[in-house]
Amino acid sequence: MKSLRIAPFILLIAFGSFAQSPRPTPQLYSDKTLSELKQIQEAALKSDYAYSRTAYLTNNIGPRLSGSSQADQAVKYVADEMRKLGLEVRLQELRVPHWVRGAETGFLTSFPGMAPGTTQKIVLAALGGSVATPENGVEAELVVVQSFAELDALPNLAIEGKVVVFNYPFDRAMQESGFGLEAYGEAVQYRSRGAAAAARRGAIAVLVRSAGGSQNRSVHTGGVRYEADGKKIPAASVSAEDAELMAYLAKMGRTKIRLTLTPKSLPDAISYNVIADLKGSEKPDEVVIVSGHLDSWDLGTGALDDATGIAVSMQVAHLLKQLKLQPKRTIRMIAYMNEENGLVGGTEYAKEQADDIGKHFAAIESDLGASHPLGILFAGKPEAEPFFAPIREVLRFQGAGLFRIEGDVGADIGPLTQRGVPSFAPWFDMRTYFNYHHTAADTLDKVDPKELKELGSVMAVLAYGLANLEQPLPR
Amino acid sequence: MKSLRIAPFILLIAFGSFAQSPRPTPQLYSDKTLSELKQIQEAALKSDYAYSRTAYLTNNIGPRLSGSSQADQAVKYVADEMRKLGLEVRLQELRVPHWVRGAETGFLTSFPGMAPGTTQKIVLAALGGSVATPENGVEAELVVVQSFAELDALPNLAIEGKVVVFNYPFDRAMQESGFGLEAYGEAVQYRSRGAAAAARRGAIAVLVRSAGGSQNRSVHTGGVRYEADGKKIPAASVSAEDAELMAYLAKMGRTKIRLTLTPKSLPDAISYNVIADLKGSEKPDEVVIVSGHLDSWDLGTGALDDATGIAVSMQVAHLLKQLKLQPKRTIRMIAYMNEENGLVGGTEYAKEQADDIGKHFAAIESDLGASHPLGILFAGKPEAEPFFAPIREVLRFQGAGLFRIEGDVGADIGPLTQRGVPSFAPWFDMRTYFNYHHTAADTLDKVDPKELKELGSVMAVLAYGLANLEQPLPR
Repeated sequence: MKSLRIAPFILLIAFGSFAQSPRPTPQLYSDKTLSELKQIQEAALKSDYAYSRTAYLTNNIGPRLSGSSQADQAVKYVADEMRKLGLEVRLQELRVPHWVRGAETGFLTSFPGMAPGTTQKIVLAALGGSVATPENGVEAELVVVQSFAELDALPNLAIEGKVVVFNYPFDRAMQESGFGLEAYGEAVQYRSRGAAAAARRGAIAVLVRSAGGSQNRSVHTGGVRYEADGKKIPAASVSAEDAELMAYLAKMGRTKIRLTLTPKSLPDAISYNVIADLKGSEKPDEVVIVSGHLDSWDLGTGALDDATGIAVSMQVAHLLKQLKLQPKRTIRMIAYMNEENGLVGGTEYAKEQADDIGKHFAAIESDLGASHPLGILFAGKPEAEPFFAPIREVLRFQGAGLFRIEGDVGADIGPLTQRGVPSFAPWFDMRTYFNYHHTAADTLDKVDPKELKELGSVMAVLAYGLANLEQPLPR
Repeated sequence: MKSLRIAPFILLIAFGSFAQSPRPTPQLYSDKTLSELKQIQEAALKSDYAYSRTAYLTNNIGPRLSGSSQADQAVKYVADEMRKLGLEVRLQELRVPHWVRGAETGFLTSFPGMAPGTTQKIVLAALGGSVATPENGVEAELVVVQSFAELDALPNLAIEGKVVVFNYPFDRAMQESGFGLEAYGEAVQYRSRGAAAAARRGAIAVLVRSAGGSQNRSVHTGGVRYEADGKKIPAASVSAEDAELMAYLAKMGRTKIRLTLTPKSLPDAISYNVIADLKGSEKPDEVVIVSGHLDSWDLGTGALDDATGIAVSMQVAHLLKQLKLQPKRTIRMIAYMNEENGLVGGTEYAKEQADDIGKHFAAIESDLGASHPLGILFAGKPEAEPFFAPIREVLRFQGAGLFRIEGDVGADIGPLTQRGVPSFAPWFDMRTYFNYHHTAADTLDKVDPKELKELGSVMAVLAYGLANLEQPLPR
């Protein structure tokens, strides 16, 4: 009995290893594809391509706010680089907001204990889209609150004609535990909605504590959202330190600020999404998007947000050309314009493609930094999850958790996601991102070349895997 | 036999515990003093006095550079507070440098890849004492080196008429291992001596990478030292990020900067050391100094450097008054003026006291921040070390290592140390200090109230112990 019972087991091993029997389930990826994925990974982990493109975008071009000369230069640069690789490049014309930062100063002109003839300087930066103060500024008393609820609780008299300061602290402990995105979500409401809330109550300007974890008196900018029919008041972000200073002084006694912000909203500018296709060999009309956004806030040089996203998207094409691999579906690199203050690029692309949404097989956007990847965010049907197992197996040692979430995984591809396109985003160790995001410190040195290679590998393996998937994805 | 051998042992225990036999060595501290030291420690660990004085100096008064109205206000404030406690207060008049920061901007006006009509902004701050550029700035090519040796290796032609950038990186890894002071010592030479070295070779201005660990595009100021007979050229500090940017671009091709610095050196100002005595009961003419420096750099509000040192020195007197304890020797609180850019206060005090140096029993200065104390630096004779054992026993749970070093333990008390006065400084966990030191981010929030209490305890216990020591210290 003993020997008889062993025989089938041996047979089974033989079959598993050597037999060419038909597979019981439809194949997801060809053996060739699986082997190519490993080649791509290996090449990506050695490639300097994405880093040098990130360096060029940040150091040679610089900050790339929509409408700026640098944004134009970046469009030209990316299009040229993609043409050099032999891709089919087109520019999708857009009309984008053109907001330009001006002078911006804040000085406390009256506060308890003030030495004669002195001030305290408030480190600040206008929020994107903010209206200006008069050229010589405004001078008014501060009213400091921590939250919308605290503002609501104040009588009108305490707010009218004053400058409201929202001193809502970004939760550093949450960030250090990995929940930076959640901490940001809580704090950033004051940046986007604080001006409208303060204006409704009669404030003449608003200052918002930076939505980020820096302890280096650094200021986080970002967009302010006015109400369509509400009063627009000047809005600026202040460093955590300055918010604390104003809270301390205003609690102690009457504290006044002279605030000058002279940004300008110019007429909309013409700009472009850069769209570059690496045509598919078998299903060229089906598209897998790899993307990031080309515009960036103007304080830093937009390294983590989002030159790296652009660079690793460009690198997908570079790696495939280098390895002489042609994907079965078309891989489309999109450098979106105007993610930061309008989302015109993402919106207009989805509009243009309205009749061809079904041909968008998948979309990937990298816009959450470039630190060590922990896996992949996925917005799509749960039934699709098993389709990614072989890709994840390749990426296993790079941290390839798959995290299915409801909602969007990237702002620019959001309109596609909402129309049913399976959508993906690299997901990262987020413990430091919000120390730099939207600040002057979002610069090249924040990009670790090794970690960028890891991200490049995730991006390219995922993109090529999706482009060569033998089955349609449930959607 | 057995019982006989046990008997002397029991006798010994009885003697040790209960007998009032004369001690074999001279007593260092009376039992009363030892018990009072514990009282002082307990009270210090509960006291908010130092924190609220730190807050007032930083938030209500602000930056306190020598010659400023804020420095005057700080002198008045500390003197008033000490008088309120009943101390005998005098102001020692000084003539101090009066340097005032002006406009300061840097823009790269030409570099490889530059988008038409754009610049890259260089975040910078004039070094203390720097001369000015012409009002409209200077425009010149950059030459970037990492070290004095690299500059030496260049031909004159490569330097003459140019702006030299010293891109010597502060060693963050050293700082994170606890060797921040050593990392600083290496980097800060370029701040102090870079201008002289570059001027000698014909440079027209110098930019120095910040001597600190911040990764938030933050700039470290501090004094520049010109050579007495050398040419004085404008000198500024740039953030680590901007130094890296300039190094990257200059390596790639010709890179020019427009640099404008308009600081002013005004005539010397009259200012003061604040000297407040809590008279001793037994040896009032013997003095134990507790001190910090009242002036601070102008970018931040001088919290760690050195409002906390002043505040914990003030607190020694407050605690003793609160506990109704009078020291045997006089405890003298000194708030030194002008540590940062001249050391006039420390120098003049030692000069004034030249004939009474022998009456200075000991001097303590706190000027290395206010984080968790690790112990006490001691500059004095090795034979004195055993004298501190009982004090260290009281402080044991706060980290009371004694570290005897050659040289100074504090700049202001240095002239006393050099004349043989046993000198002390609280010593700290230095892993974050140089992220903030001399930057705009040296603000109140960097002071942990609990850690400041620990420092206050070390300061007060050490001061009272020294003031009540029953023996003279070897010196």
